Amino acid sequence: MPRKQLHLNAFLMSTGHHEASWRLPESRAEADSDLEHYKNLARIAERGRLDSLFFADGPVLAGDPGRRPAAKLEPTLLLTALAAVTEHIGLIATASTSYNEPYNLARRFASLDHISGGRAGWNIVTTAGADAARNFGLDDTPLHRDRYRRAAEFVEVSTKLWDSWADDAVVADKEAGVHARADRVRGIAHTGEFFRVDGPLNVQRPPQGYPLLVQAGSSESGKDFAARYAEAVFTAQQTLQEGIAFYADVKGRAEALGRNPDGVKILPGIVPVIGDTEAEARELDAELDRLIVPEYAKRQLAATLGLDPADLHLDRELPDGLPDEDEIEGAKSRYTLVVELARRERLTVRELIGRLGGGRGHRTFAGTAEQVADTIEHWFESGAADGFNIMPAVLPSGLEAFVDRVVPLLQERGLFRTEYTGATLREHYGLPRPANRLFDTVDAGRGHTGIGLAVPAPV
Amino acid sequence: MPRKQLHLNAFLMSTGHHEASWRLPESRAEADSDLEHYKNLARIAERGRLDSLFFADGPVLAGDPGRRPAAKLEPTLLLTALAAVTEHIGLIATASTSYNEPYNLARRFASLDHISGGRAGWNIVTTAGADAARNFGLDDTPLHRDRYRRAAEFVEVSTKLWDSWADDAVVADKEAGVHARADRVRGIAHTGEFFRVDGPLNVQRPPQGYPLLVQAGSSESGKDFAARYAEAVFTAQQTLQEGIAFYADVKGRAEALGRNPDGVKILPGIVPVIGDTEAEARELDAELDRLIVPEYAKRQLAATLGLDPADLHLDRELPDGLPDEDEIEGAKSRYTLVVELARRERLTVRELIGRLGGGRGHRTFAGTAEQVADTIEHWFESGAADGFNIMPAVLPSGLEAFVDRVVPLLQERGLFRTEYTGATLREHYGLPRPANRLFDTVDAGRGHTGIGLAVPAPV
Repeated sequence: MPRKQLHLNAFLMSTGHHEASWRLPESRAEADSDLEHYKNLARIAERGRLDSLFFADGPVLAGDPGRRPAAKLEPTLLLTALAAVTEHIGLIATASTSYNEPYNLARRFASLDHISGGRAGWNIVTTAGADAARNFGLDDTPLHRDRYRRAAEFVEVSTKLWDSWADDAVVADKEAGVHARADRVRGIAHTGEFFRVDGPLNVQRPPQGYPLLVQAGSSESGKDFAARYAEAVFTAQQTLQEGIAFYADVKGRAEALGRNPDGVKILPGIVPVIGDTEAEARELDAELDRLIVPEYAKRQLAATLGLDPADLHLDRELPDGLPDEDEIEGAKSRYTLVVELARRERLTVRELIGRLGGGRGHRTFAGTAEQVADTIEHWFESGAADGFNIMPAVLPSGLEAFVDRVVPLLQERGLFRTEYTGATLREHYGLPRPANRLFDTVDAGRGHTGIGLAVPAPV
Repeated sequence: MPRKQLHLNAFLMSTGHHEASWRLPESRAEADSDLEHYKNLARIAERGRLDSLFFADGPVLAGDPGRRPAAKLEPTLLLTALAAVTEHIGLIATASTSYNEPYNLARRFASLDHISGGRAGWNIVTTAGADAARNFGLDDTPLHRDRYRRAAEFVEVSTKLWDSWADDAVVADKEAGVHARADRVRGIAHTGEFFRVDGPLNVQRPPQGYPLLVQAGSSESGKDFAARYAEAVFTAQQTLQEGIAFYADVKGRAEALGRNPDGVKILPGIVPVIGDTEAEARELDAELDRLIVPEYAKRQLAATLGLDPADLHLDRELPDGLPDEDEIEGAKSRYTLVVELARRERLTVRELIGRLGGGRGHRTFAGTAEQVADTIEHWFESGAADGFNIMPAVLPSGLEAFVDRVVPLLQERGLFRTEYTGATLREHYGLPRPANRLFDTVDAGRGHTGIGLAVPAPV
């Protein structure tokens, strides 16, 4: 009997996830605006038969543009450009529910799904940070709980809009002069706490029904949201024990909502630093850490922790008396992860900066291709992961090393596809095409949408 | 001495501008969602060395989806996909200032400009219609004058965001560990009537400085807006006299604001219906009109005029007592154009529907390729146009006929390029790259941005 298959997503980011990667000789100066760079990465990921590639995003210039490439092409456009040079790989973009209108965003993802032939995915984020808020007329971030309520309603509206055309709406009957059947396209008449949207959408139902719904927040609200709506979860887990606990937690919450826990794929991030020997990998990792400019990094760490940079000393541990996660209005789970990492391993600020510089809290693993494959298999078999979010420290070389050296090992072990067998992103992840909630379509026999939309929302 | 060159834009729309075009045997049933259809059109337009191609847009399902293809892929994404299969042609999309946030939209156009190598253009619209408003939590369209004030501020914010990175900001000094110079990227701290935006943008300055700024409203507010901000104007003019008057009017308003009138290109729309003989062209035009379903069309005409469909009788003229343009809160200039056309030619509702079915108020011209070239040359030489917005009644055949039969005549007459000589959309239109208003760059010597931004706004 064939082994259960794991899923691999390539999380791409300019010259790589290590903040100093741009200083390596291989790195292109303007990689962050350079389409050719991303085309090359997309082709490498597809060569490796990866399920998908992914761009994180926020509507703000994040961090100091002196420190590392900080510009980002808007990811729904960038993915559209990459759809043209790939045929199979899924295309996932982060987009914010706090700083978009559902009609516009649902339309962009529907368009990406049509243009790519059913390969679109949406990483749903609520966007923490006052700096982003101040690009949209606000003084500060909306409250964490309000952001999540808005996100839930945003997903409700978006899925209704995607359902506003029945799959069989267009008949194009030239003889009768009827292009679409009037009774198979309809408004959604949504009125809620945050949105009033009449609809229908002005794009036909996406090939996938809905784009794949992804989520990446790991706070309590984030996990509840994931359990209800997400079909794939990107998460940062430093230890196997934490990974197992998170996996069980989210799957259990989904099951409690009546969902099939297999319908939520858990993908922890891993920053693989690959060498011919373990020593070589460790040396590459250390070289990257030496290239970090500590003053820049200290400033960003202070911002994450809500401190003044002057409160942090490079060769001391974090100060005492940091606030609890409950008191944080920003990216709660990231805050906790950083503080716990520092406390658990008693890291100095300088050491913590090194650990965060690689993957911003994701797990860096330096070793041989065999060792990387082993740790992936171990987490997968231990119930900590349905797959991995691959975050190369350096691009393109780190992605090339993963695809050309680690993927073949996973394939040999029967854990990963050797050819694409599906056409759509949902098919790569083994997820169903959602039934249409607004029409009795031919899909209706399949019942549930697969996500938490058929379940009444809690009061 | 070479002749002054005219400019040609291909205005693309599913199966063509004639509302019954989808009923012809050549038309693909799902052209409106089909990327291959648009790729084919983009390649044809580029084969003709056209300056640009263009998609109109609105965030609403406009009209009855039974009547004609009504879905529209989001145009900034569609143009991104078309950038991948073309090398030279400009890529212009409509986007609404009423239903977007400037940070998001400025970023998308900057991204399109980077991805396409400097070929992006933005047709700035304020979006009339209560149906669009009701997709964004409003009961009705904002007032006409408020929409235009918001549009002006939206352009101010967008251009500041594009200027928030100096052209020389990125140094990528690997040795020193400085990616961008801190003093060459800065916030915009915009506070106005409609928007508060801190900036900076998270995309580097576009290759063109700003994407080409296009405008298409012909009301008094529309013409004032065009005179201040637009570098190209799409307009509907039925007669040569009206064309000359509009041309002089907009150029005069631009000059009065201190702009070079050559910096505003006027492009009337023309719906060319081309036959081997004039009789053949007229027969194709008549065949299309016969395919219109009059009940659908009557409903839309009634909506444009703010009437009940029952007030219109197919074989009578428009009723008396229609409101003045001043009383209309929707698309004012379109309203006036329709009413004036009907009154001037004493058209019945059925006849008016035929005239509007082809180009929705734009000028339909049925004739031989020679006759189409003649009328283009005549308008161009008479001071009614700097070029034309080509709106084929049927796609792809109408675009093919124009490119393969009319363009060669214009080239023989020395009126149109035989090869692309510039790399960017601005270069195709002979327009300058705007100086950066926020930084003293190497561009500064060139002075003015070219558009009305250096001129203080009226109180």
